[in-house]
Amino acid sequence: MDCVFCKIINGEIPSYKVYEDDIVVAFLDINPFSTGHTLIVPKVHTLDLETIDDETLNHIMMVARKIAKDITRKLDAPGYTLIQNNGFVEEVKHFHLHVIPKYKKDKKMDIKDVYEKITQSE
Amino acid sequence: MDCVFCKIINGEIPSYKVYEDDIVVAFLDINPFSTGHTLIVPKVHTLDLETIDDETLNHIMMVARKIAKDITRKLDAPGYTLIQNNGFVEEVKHFHLHVIPKYKKDKKMDIKDVYEKITQSE
Repeated sequence: MDCVFCKIINGEIPSYKVYEDDIVVAFLDINPFSTGHTLIVPKVHTLDLETIDDETLNHIMMVARKIAKDITRKLDAPGYTLIQNNGFVEEVKHFHLHVIPKYKKDKKMDIKDVYEKITQSE
Repeated sequence: MDCVFCKIINGEIPSYKVYEDDIVVAFLDINPFSTGHTLIVPKVHTLDLETIDDETLNHIMMVARKIAKDITRKLDAPGYTLIQNNGFVEEVKHFHLHVIPKYKKDKKMDIKDVYEKITQSE
């Protein structure tokens, strides 16, 4: 299957991975809406909200809560938005939840610096 | 507590309610981003993704899946987006999940007609 997210999950395409467990991977979006924009994707390929199984969906929401708290704290973002697209508005046809930090003033950082800031030990 | 969503839930403020169970209410957004824009809110007041309990969050996602399928079918929307805001970008300070139907061409309908179309028996 020619799915870019499956290739990221398999390691065929490199990514800035900020979280991983048995069920999901989270990595920085390379075309971010904002600094720290992260995608959470299930490891098992599935299309969208209709096809994802309940357990995986619930797990993704728990991971979203955890990641969002961590990323927004490390990047000093005073808000964030979760977005999940379905149907023709879903660009990559593999379920993904966007975690998008929000800033009062636009914040520009190189993706490598964002990655280091998020993944550095404390 | 002066919360507009609590007042909608309590019936103090009228709304176009499209779904209700013991845990959540869903109603049409009166300032919709698109035709059929619906909000799903927990009946028990809670601020955001960080404060909502796991069980309620998971239930909301199950309801979102069900409602989105139903609304997009009835309104002929070929896609939809879920959005959930936190921190300073959350306008009403009561957890809410936006279900936003997406159309290839802009679709304009009066909210009463949308309500009838969604809630009509089949």
